[in-house]
Amino acid sequence: MNTLDLLITNLSRLPGIGRKSASRIAYYLLKADRGYVDAVAREIAELKDRIKVCTVCGNYTEEEPCSICRDAQRDRALLCVVEQSEDVATIESTNEFRGLYHVLMGVLSPIDGVGPENLNFARLLHRVRNEGVREVIIATNPTVEGDTTGLYAVRLLKDVDVKISRLASGLPVGGDLEYADRLTLARSLKGRTPLTP
Amino acid sequence: MNTLDLLITNLSRLPGIGRKSASRIAYYLLKADRGYVDAVAREIAELKDRIKVCTVCGNYTEEEPCSICRDAQRDRALLCVVEQSEDVATIESTNEFRGLYHVLMGVLSPIDGVGPENLNFARLLHRVRNEGVREVIIATNPTVEGDTTGLYAVRLLKDVDVKISRLASGLPVGGDLEYADRLTLARSLKGRTPLTP
Repeated sequence: MNTLDLLITNLSRLPGIGRKSASRIAYYLLKADRGYVDAVAREIAELKDRIKVCTVCGNYTEEEPCSICRDAQRDRALLCVVEQSEDVATIESTNEFRGLYHVLMGVLSPIDGVGPENLNFARLLHRVRNEGVREVIIATNPTVEGDTTGLYAVRLLKDVDVKISRLASGLPVGGDLEYADRLTLARSLKGRTPLTP
Repeated sequence: MNTLDLLITNLSRLPGIGRKSASRIAYYLLKADRGYVDAVAREIAELKDRIKVCTVCGNYTEEEPCSICRDAQRDRALLCVVEQSEDVATIESTNEFRGLYHVLMGVLSPIDGVGPENLNFARLLHRVRNEGVREVIIATNPTVEGDTTGLYAVRLLKDVDVKISRLASGLPVGGDLEYADRLTLARSLKGRTPLTP
């Protein structure tokens, strides 16, 4: 197999990239300016060496601890528990959260052999106990695994004097009742918020 | 900007890749096994050095001339003229064509300043004149630019004793009359093929 076919085959392993997209990308790279292509190659090669896991929160970072854990402006009493690093970036993009994060690095999934001991739970308990956390916001995904993982965290923290909350589940903003699935609708009914005149 | 953000920004320049896909790909690479990530980085870095343009047909190749031009099994009397290297791969994937190719490396496009002198036309004339070509199949895209480029090739070869044909244009197989655009339908009417009982 030549370099082009090899690259196309490897690129088509990437998430959301099929054989056709991989081929388009490879030909695009062939025609792109060398500076750009070299930068992409270098960044991919260096990625795994440069990016570490923050020993405090579990987020991906180039410095230790990560920029969020180091930020003196953030509210250290508020801890948002997420499944993975990507979720930190997503929540940060809302500019609505000024507390710290805790990345579990996965979800409980007995079928894949992932138990509590494989996730970042011990460190969560330690942080909540010793670092002045007053509220823990469970921000795992609204899926079976995410909910189970969230419930496990709640039970883990049951003897610690801390407020625990969960991200609201319900209709997406701009959505349409007609197209909402039954479960989402049921959750949005259950979690209905009071309106005052 | 850190390595991860830089990579995401660069990946989102690729065709068909938006900011979200770029981010998914970057995180996937972070978690993927090192052998795979190193292979992708190396292949991208080496791409532009390894892949050359075949001096005979203009196709991308690692060897000179390319494997198609070297293949003694192929019908040298049949020459398929395409816009770009990608089209060679696409036509090859049908396993229906056993002749040689000629890659024009673009289409005529006065608005982008691409004239006949910027394309691989001189070599096309030379090949058709001197290499025993009996039929030229114009396989440029069925677009305004592709058709114009095809017509230019026809005029270029008008004094050479060679048969010239054009890929059939019409309804895509498995398509639906109802969803065909007017132009495609008009072309498929004009190019209707006789049925014999």
